[in-house]
Amino acid sequence: MEMDLKAGERIDQLMTVDLEIIQSSEVFSFSLDALLLNEFTYIPTRANVKIVDLCSGNGVIPLLLSQRTKGKIIGIELQERLADMAKRSVELNHLGGQIDILQADIAQALDYVDPDSVDVITVNPPYYAVDETGRQNPNPHLAIARHEIHTNLDQVLSISSKLLKMNGRFFMVHRPERLVEIMDRMRAHRLALKQIQFVYPKKDRQANILLVEGIKDGKETGLKVLPPLYIHGEDGQYLPEIRKIIYGRED
Amino acid sequence: MEMDLKAGERIDQLMTVDLEIIQSSEVFSFSLDALLLNEFTYIPTRANVKIVDLCSGNGVIPLLLSQRTKGKIIGIELQERLADMAKRSVELNHLGGQIDILQADIAQALDYVDPDSVDVITVNPPYYAVDETGRQNPNPHLAIARHEIHTNLDQVLSISSKLLKMNGRFFMVHRPERLVEIMDRMRAHRLALKQIQFVYPKKDRQANILLVEGIKDGKETGLKVLPPLYIHGEDGQYLPEIRKIIYGRED
Repeated sequence: MEMDLKAGERIDQLMTVDLEIIQSSEVFSFSLDALLLNEFTYIPTRANVKIVDLCSGNGVIPLLLSQRTKGKIIGIELQERLADMAKRSVELNHLGGQIDILQADIAQALDYVDPDSVDVITVNPPYYAVDETGRQNPNPHLAIARHEIHTNLDQVLSISSKLLKMNGRFFMVHRPERLVEIMDRMRAHRLALKQIQFVYPKKDRQANILLVEGIKDGKETGLKVLPPLYIHGEDGQYLPEIRKIIYGRED
Repeated sequence: MEMDLKAGERIDQLMTVDLEIIQSSEVFSFSLDALLLNEFTYIPTRANVKIVDLCSGNGVIPLLLSQRTKGKIIGIELQERLADMAKRSVELNHLGGQIDILQADIAQALDYVDPDSVDVITVNPPYYAVDETGRQNPNPHLAIARHEIHTNLDQVLSISSKLLKMNGRFFMVHRPERLVEIMDRMRAHRLALKQIQFVYPKKDRQANILLVEGIKDGKETGLKVLPPLYIHGEDGQYLPEIRKIIYGRED
């Protein structure tokens, strides 16, 4: 399909599956974190499942999830420029029947999606609190994607909880440094923490990525801590299981 | 040194250091968890450091810590039979000048130790909540050591917080299943979670041991998730770093 690209944009392959995605290093390109979140997300097998991806960026998560389910996927992205890229990527892959991209503030999500109606929520939110020094990326697109300028952890969890059905599942990628706050705010918003997984850049290093699964109004017992994931081997190369997540094959 | 042993007791070597410890499989013998807690515990280097080990069992933690510091160590153990074993092990190793074993309920710890006076607390508490079915070890000594019959997580954290100086350090080994509750109760008792480490029985298995470090009245930011530890290799044998913790050498 022919697709007009805007300045600085390129079309990349999503290597694992037969998909193309519009990216721009000036505005937004997806990271390994998004691929890990996709891998971590469990989707019920029934056909009429309803999925919402918050803070959707250029739509990488909805695009990836579309290959694993026949369910309807709604991506919500605040930034007009990113939502526009996501919409064009949906079109490029002929997925308009399955994926809706909404350009909206997640605070308004309930204007578009019924409360207690969603089976699965995914979110790769801004990771960093806005500190007093105001240190953040000078590029406003990247700053909004990375720092809690227009939303924050508490709001993401609050909105997710309102959207989810009872026993609906919540999947998020975030930073381990904020685990205490994540647990506290999940509990406050009735999302029972069921599974977590830590991702380590390499052996003998601290974890730098956290994956969490919650269940709305689930029982708060028996947290499972999944086997750790490592990104790089001793030689600095991606390990086979990460190569599989990125390229769809281990070699 | 000659030492009278009671029925069912034996003297084991603490392999890593030149220590002997009285054990009994009918009453109490220390586990890998205690060795991992010792390894995880950081002791300030100054000589006058004051350390309290709660739920001390047969005194394995005080004995191990004594080899790493000149500080005073107080072990508190409720069960008379276990406290007696611990006292005789202290005697056996001529450590009476450094280690005091108190036979007491930790609820009474403040009758023996001043509040806000302790630099380091270690604890390997009973892991399992007492459930309604009442399923627990029929051996009362083991049941008390493993189940929250005479103390519980909230009390352990409350007493620890009262005993610790401001910025005093708290080290605990527990089960990952209870991480949400541990974080919640630590926060409630002014113990800021600083570092955690997960221990996995082997590759591709869920974590089954959790190590946590808290700081009394510390700042609640920037949790560090330390590199994971594995116990067994693919062949079912202890891995070198675990052999080192148990036997003092990797081969």
